[in-house]
Amino acid sequence: MPTAVVRRAAALVRLFLRASHPARMVVIGFAMAVLLGAGLLMLPVSTEQGSTTDWVTALFTATSAVCVTGLVVVDTAAHWSTFGEVVVLGLIQVGGLGIMTLASLLGMLVVRRLGLRMRRSAQAETKSLGLGDVRSVIAGVITLSLVMEAITALALTLRFVLGYGQSWGEGAYFGVFHAVSAFNNAGFALYPDSLQRYATDPLVCLPVLFAVIVGGLGFPVLFEIGRRLRGKRRHWSLHARVTLLAYSVLLGVGVLAFGAFEWNNPETLGPLSVGGKLLVGLFHGTTPRTAGFTTVDIGEINPTTMLVNDVLMFVGGGSAGTAGGIKVTTFALLAFVILTEVRGESQVHVLGRKLPVGVQRQALTVVLVAVGMVFTATLLLLVITPFGLDATLFESISAFGTVGLSTGITEQLPRAAELVLIVLMFTGRLGPITMASALALRERGRRYDLPEERPIVG
Amino acid sequence: MPTAVVRRAAALVRLFLRASHPARMVVIGFAMAVLLGAGLLMLPVSTEQGSTTDWVTALFTATSAVCVTGLVVVDTAAHWSTFGEVVVLGLIQVGGLGIMTLASLLGMLVVRRLGLRMRRSAQAETKSLGLGDVRSVIAGVITLSLVMEAITALALTLRFVLGYGQSWGEGAYFGVFHAVSAFNNAGFALYPDSLQRYATDPLVCLPVLFAVIVGGLGFPVLFEIGRRLRGKRRHWSLHARVTLLAYSVLLGVGVLAFGAFEWNNPETLGPLSVGGKLLVGLFHGTTPRTAGFTTVDIGEINPTTMLVNDVLMFVGGGSAGTAGGIKVTTFALLAFVILTEVRGESQVHVLGRKLPVGVQRQALTVVLVAVGMVFTATLLLLVITPFGLDATLFESISAFGTVGLSTGITEQLPRAAELVLIVLMFTGRLGPITMASALALRERGRRYDLPEERPIVG
Ligand SMILES: [K+]
Ligand SMILES: [K+]
Repeated sequence: MPTAVVRRAAALVRLFLRASHPARMVVIGFAMAVLLGAGLLMLPVSTEQGSTTDWVTALFTATSAVCVTGLVVVDTAAHWSTFGEVVVLGLIQVGGLGIMTLASLLGMLVVRRLGLRMRRSAQAETKSLGLGDVRSVIAGVITLSLVMEAITALALTLRFVLGYGQSWGEGAYFGVFHAVSAFNNAGFALYPDSLQRYATDPLVCLPVLFAVIVGGLGFPVLFEIGRRLRGKRRHWSLHARVTLLAYSVLLGVGVLAFGAFEWNNPETLGPLSVGGKLLVGLFHGTTPRTAGFTTVDIGEINPTTMLVNDVLMFVGGGSAGTAGGIKVTTFALLAFVILTEVRGESQVHVLGRKLPVGVQRQALTVVLVAVGMVFTATLLLLVITPFGLDATLFESISAFGTVGLSTGITEQLPRAAELVLIVLMFTGRLGPITMASALALRERGRRYDLPEERPIVG
Repeated sequence: MPTAVVRRAAALVRLFLRASHPARMVVIGFAMAVLLGAGLLMLPVSTEQGSTTDWVTALFTATSAVCVTGLVVVDTAAHWSTFGEVVVLGLIQVGGLGIMTLASLLGMLVVRRLGLRMRRSAQAETKSLGLGDVRSVIAGVITLSLVMEAITALALTLRFVLGYGQSWGEGAYFGVFHAVSAFNNAGFALYPDSLQRYATDPLVCLPVLFAVIVGGLGFPVLFEIGRRLRGKRRHWSLHARVTLLAYSVLLGVGVLAFGAFEWNNPETLGPLSVGGKLLVGLFHGTTPRTAGFTTVDIGEINPTTMLVNDVLMFVGGGSAGTAGGIKVTTFALLAFVILTEVRGESQVHVLGRKLPVGVQRQALTVVLVAVGMVFTATLLLLVITPFGLDATLFESISAFGTVGLSTGITEQLPRAAELVLIVLMFTGRLGPITMASALALRERGRRYDLPEERPIVG
């Protein structure tokens, strides 16, 4: 038995290091971007004071930027110079483009190899997911990102200049920074209190939400929507339908929960007009889908709202987009498995399609490994820091899901806890994607058959 | 879509009310025992002061006793008269015998109908699980319970009389009460601080642990062990092997975690000798397997230990025994599913046997529904009470898993929160068992086939 365990653990390690080259390349590429970014941020030119930044702070900031998480141990505008801010912005853009491209390509690889039985429909299927070939995926992701970021930046710039009297230069800088940060679901802001000063301004909040949602749906879904907008009517893929359904449901749950639980909280929605409550509720119902911006102080939301947010942040956004978490499809597939059980059927049907057994197990594995990661990190934070379960669990899920929301403890964490979060942000960003595709690509036929036996469940 | 949701919700309700008669009978039987017990406890003769007890307190205590949970809103020895204590003891005994018998019978039904393809081996299988026929199961459960309780009661009585100078009458009463409470994993004690006064006395702690572990392994496993002890060598069933493996692993994890995290805590293990630390560590590594007794103040354990306990309590003990939770087999099966994924195999193999796909989905469903129940209850407690996530999550899992450990908030809860816990204790006791068997009994062949399609996971 111990030998078997060691052998299996080794297989797990090999899984990431050797067995699947595409997954390994993703990890190495992201690690290099993080290290390069940290190196740049350590330079004196990157800080407002012109002094060197210690390596943990630089590494934390670079990881948070590349993984589009948005957690910060130093205030972005106060600590970093404009050069440093541009480095952060560049890392966000590289991280966002990288994750969209690589996740789309890995998804394409999986669908191509395993998606459908017949070669012809497999080709049709990958085309319908917008995954024709590698170059067109890269071109599509870059075009989409830049266009959406430009639209959002324009809207924000106009508002900052016309509504808040900023100069065109300053307005454009703030507009571009927050547009890129929003589309990539990064959550970095140039204000110490995120976007709280714009809490009741729909002309700032709505463009940000637009960018957050578009970026968070994921490239394959956006590609399908785009095709339909261009008048090419075809059937929706299962992936797009599940994503849109689950994303809408979670958005609704988020808005309702935040609105209901915070309506009378004097520190959050309490003092606002009904219109203001609705706008902030909409904003904070969306932002746990790993956007990370805030328009109220997250440290003041009540523990009920916090627990709902924990779940929403863990689920995250759409696959192959800039959002993190285990992804809404993974979550929805498990819901459909339960529905199958309730209906007493032997096969899992999802919106008129049959779900392969392998995919069910992959979804389960992704969720349980994610739970294990968040649990381990929370445990470590409880040991290392003086904070309670509320704050440490929230922080861990925020880092794992690349959300960037915090109850305010990030800047007070000891070094060891910062290192825990660095590892968690990195594995949270790449873990679910690489694990899911690596698992799917390893899927193979049965080699031998054992007698079936049924233990008692429950 | 809304119609479909309503139809499915209705199917879920029917599942418990009509579709599976055995599951419905279990629920009705337990509800009647609870109501009868609550009625008796409301009588003036049941209290020390001779006054009537309010219905919520009586209902809470009766539910806690029948569900062998052990959470209390009034101190057992101080509030209840000897008559009241005997009522509690009777409810524990009825609840424990009831759950062992009914879970064993439901397990038998499932194995008989679905266990194996060939009729002959199905009969062999149900025999090997000790599930020959209904009467022999009932007789076996009663015999086993009474023998084990008698052994434990004898050991405790001798210790109380010889070691602590109690009279034979008093010693026997305390011995029987705590033996029955231990074997049934109920956790009710006649001391306001549970068994803390015996923390370093192995002659009290070890008999209690013996009863807790034997009761918590479950009847099918005990039947197999008994058969082997009588020299009838046969192959171990998959259920027994998985249970013993998982139970041992969780016991080890529990002891190690409690020992390591509490070793220097001045409020728990700190002041004790190494021998005392080890005994208390062993005790508190075992008690989250839903025994509910304590030998240190659970309100003083640090948040790290509490979080580990949360997980252990959620998993609980063996199937068809007196322990609660989702059960160790359910937990282990999911671990084997993950192992399958890591090994890249298409079929789940568990200790040399193939696991039917239906069982995998049932285990997943039981776990996710349980998570949903604990989550909902925690959310309600956060709304209703002033306590934080640490205490409310711990309390919810303790009630759901019929554990009975508490950070000390139970007696301070408002009425509404007590009602939440009553519902949670009841559904936590019967939910996983009835759900798992109801799901398994509904399993049927495919009726129609849809085209397969693979969404992106992660
Ligand atoms: K983020
Ligand atoms: K208990």
